[in-house]
Amino acid sequence: MAAFVLHSVNRSAQISTKQCFISHKVSRLPRIQDVHLTSFHSSTVHRWSSLPGARWLSRGIGVRFMSQGTAGRSPAGRTRRGALALAGAVAAVAGFVANACHFQRAEMASRVIQVAEQEDDILEKCKGFMSLPVTDIQVLQEKKGEMCTRMEMLIMETQAEFCRALEKVDGGKFKADRWQRKEGGGGISCVIQDSNVFEKAGVNVSVVFGHLTEEAAKQMKSRGKVLKGKDGKLPFCAMGISSVIHPKNPHVPTVHFNYRYFEIEEDDGSKQWWFGGGTDLTPTYLNKEDAFLFHNTLKEACDKHNPQYYPDFKKWCDRYFYIRHRGETRGIGGIFFDDLDTPSQEEAFGFIKSCTSTVVPCYIPLVYKHRNDAFTDEEKRWQQLRRGRYVEFNLVYDRGVKFGLATPGSRIESILMSLPLTAKWEYSHEPAEGTKEAEILEALRSPREWL
Amino acid sequence: MAAFVLHSVNRSAQISTKQCFISHKVSRLPRIQDVHLTSFHSSTVHRWSSLPGARWLSRGIGVRFMSQGTAGRSPAGRTRRGALALAGAVAAVAGFVANACHFQRAEMASRVIQVAEQEDDILEKCKGFMSLPVTDIQVLQEKKGEMCTRMEMLIMETQAEFCRALEKVDGGKFKADRWQRKEGGGGISCVIQDSNVFEKAGVNVSVVFGHLTEEAAKQMKSRGKVLKGKDGKLPFCAMGISSVIHPKNPHVPTVHFNYRYFEIEEDDGSKQWWFGGGTDLTPTYLNKEDAFLFHNTLKEACDKHNPQYYPDFKKWCDRYFYIRHRGETRGIGGIFFDDLDTPSQEEAFGFIKSCTSTVVPCYIPLVYKHRNDAFTDEEKRWQQLRRGRYVEFNLVYDRGVKFGLATPGSRIESILMSLPLTAKWEYSHEPAEGTKEAEILEALRSPREWL
Repeated sequence: MAAFVLHSVNRSAQISTKQCFISHKVSRLPRIQDVHLTSFHSSTVHRWSSLPGARWLSRGIGVRFMSQGTAGRSPAGRTRRGALALAGAVAAVAGFVANACHFQRAEMASRVIQVAEQEDDILEKCKGFMSLPVTDIQVLQEKKGEMCTRMEMLIMETQAEFCRALEKVDGGKFKADRWQRKEGGGGISCVIQDSNVFEKAGVNVSVVFGHLTEEAAKQMKSRGKVLKGKDGKLPFCAMGISSVIHPKNPHVPTVHFNYRYFEIEEDDGSKQWWFGGGTDLTPTYLNKEDAFLFHNTLKEACDKHNPQYYPDFKKWCDRYFYIRHRGETRGIGGIFFDDLDTPSQEEAFGFIKSCTSTVVPCYIPLVYKHRNDAFTDEEKRWQQLRRGRYVEFNLVYDRGVKFGLATPGSRIESILMSLPLTAKWEYSHEPAEGTKEAEILEALRSPREWL
Repeated sequence: MAAFVLHSVNRSAQISTKQCFISHKVSRLPRIQDVHLTSFHSSTVHRWSSLPGARWLSRGIGVRFMSQGTAGRSPAGRTRRGALALAGAVAAVAGFVANACHFQRAEMASRVIQVAEQEDDILEKCKGFMSLPVTDIQVLQEKKGEMCTRMEMLIMETQAEFCRALEKVDGGKFKADRWQRKEGGGGISCVIQDSNVFEKAGVNVSVVFGHLTEEAAKQMKSRGKVLKGKDGKLPFCAMGISSVIHPKNPHVPTVHFNYRYFEIEEDDGSKQWWFGGGTDLTPTYLNKEDAFLFHNTLKEACDKHNPQYYPDFKKWCDRYFYIRHRGETRGIGGIFFDDLDTPSQEEAFGFIKSCTSTVVPCYIPLVYKHRNDAFTDEEKRWQQLRRGRYVEFNLVYDRGVKFGLATPGSRIESILMSLPLTAKWEYSHEPAEGTKEAEILEALRSPREWL
């Protein structure tokens, strides 16, 4: 089920040096928040032939094309790095650093880490994935130092690691659906449904590129600024991992995480890149010990990078996952952030790696702890009512879902994979005072500190 | 359960003659579409004291205040009619008509009908309702000729008639919840849940007034035109009945209807009024005989008023109840219309009366016909999946729900009463070719003529 699925598009990877090595200035711009990357495909993404001189670019290369000139790297540095990726790694480090004298100290150091990473054999890593990566392996190998490749490898690894851990605790097997779009990009949706422990669990990866449509651009404008596109269109590439796990047992909480990377090009040729993401927990019943473990794991990951990350991103999470018409948060939070383009691309990526590495330790212990807890019909009913709220948030407020649904040709099944298998709406249900149901509601109505 | 619930606000009805008899020009403007009237209350509606000189107006009178000067009636005509409402009816007809020489012929004729209606004893009618009307009975009696009173009586009657018919076929009893807001207006929500035949059935009435907030005005702007308010605010009154019935048996279809009346005042004092509404059917399985009965009942009601109504409103319905991201209509349609302000207020109201009178004959026979049909687990599962689609439409597209949820202080339980008790989302579910499930999907993907 979770084995490799051969994909049909495997055109040769032709690269125009001229096109590859254009560098661009970076200016600060608004960002998409929590976009489910599965929405960027099919008719939302236009032929590369609409970019002058790019008609011949293959699917795999198309993704890479968008990542050229990222973060103001110089043409010289890029040329050197491009060559190094195909040569031996140890010599490469020295050669790269020697040629990078115009970079700042911090950036130099991060490049060393980056090139060292390239020693891992991409093909070998791919064997452990739930499916072949979206981008051709040959292209990934040729461009293994680029952020798009590194992020794609990270999200594929995270998908495999999390799915395997879920399979182990559940006993079932994920179904991996590979979807592609004609002109490039696609995704891998892994789903397990009505299994032993999980009612519905989805772990999505997508890597897509193209142009933002007018409606999509409108969603971006919600941040308050306008991105200037050529003829109203903005070439972009985007990739990410997104997951929602709905367990059967009402004592096992629901978890959601999403980590993503964006690049977007304005009409003056300047490029924006940024990371976003978060992990948050939605328990049916309050368990302070669970809340502590979950938040503490996230805090430790954050603290390695910036002591302000956890407090800031925890608050952002409470604000974002807020069901306004109910006056409740969706769950007990976690972290949420967007627009992360500081202190450097390398450091930001390092933080994303720390975040994705917490996915298993944040959640899997809670599944083992509670999967066999006894529960009553009343507890199951309360879980179903809370699932109804989950649906309300996802369909009414979630910017990623809204963006996806408004984008013609989106892969709806991947976007709405986050909806629970079952949900319930009872008219005017309100738990009695002093009950466990009232206890969690209280926590959702007044977000608190868990550490 | 469905007996009268005494309400607490019953202030004396003081009327300022000066304020009552101001007439206004009517100019054409955009309208709210399918707004669930339950959203207009609480903090969305501002104190009457914000209207100069209107501080002392009571709750009941507040509603009436908004209906003054409707449709260009002359001050003389209004004075006369106001007096008549308190006098004997037979003499009143002659007196009214004698004083109405400045009206057009058609308008005169309709006034006769209108005044004749007033002979019915409002108090007597109220005894058959699910609850006391929203407006004080004394006020209704004093102003029984006004459109706001007539519409409130009509929706209260329709609520009672439909609830009684549903109770009869189900064997259960509706719970009638009366809700009010401090400054005036409110509603009556009748709900039956997890009963014999019905999983969840709601029949809502609301009568509200106040000012449109900025966010609400934004929703109105979606029609393409901007309503000019005083300091960005627009006094309005609105009333309507809205109902969604979700049966247990997958062979009994879900029905929805909504009929409403609006008045809105611009900053130049001009008033807009219009009617809107519709009735539509959402079966789990296709039954052409049912579809014929349902559509034919609606067509017969439409044809009494205008041969173009059914074909036009049938198409409008298919367009409106469209789940764009699924490429499916929510159900097999019916009629839907808005902005109805022609050929006259009286004739438009006559059409609304015809529509509300079809609610029982459109639907109740289908409940009797199928309530005891045998069904399989697979059929129940398909019903639950279709309920999921119902939730998707209501939360993602329904303008009334969106308007209500965006309006702070709305009565959420009344707005979301339309959601089913239970719903299901299976990943990538697609019925096999040639099945009954595929048959209904085909009808939803390509709306057809049923007559």
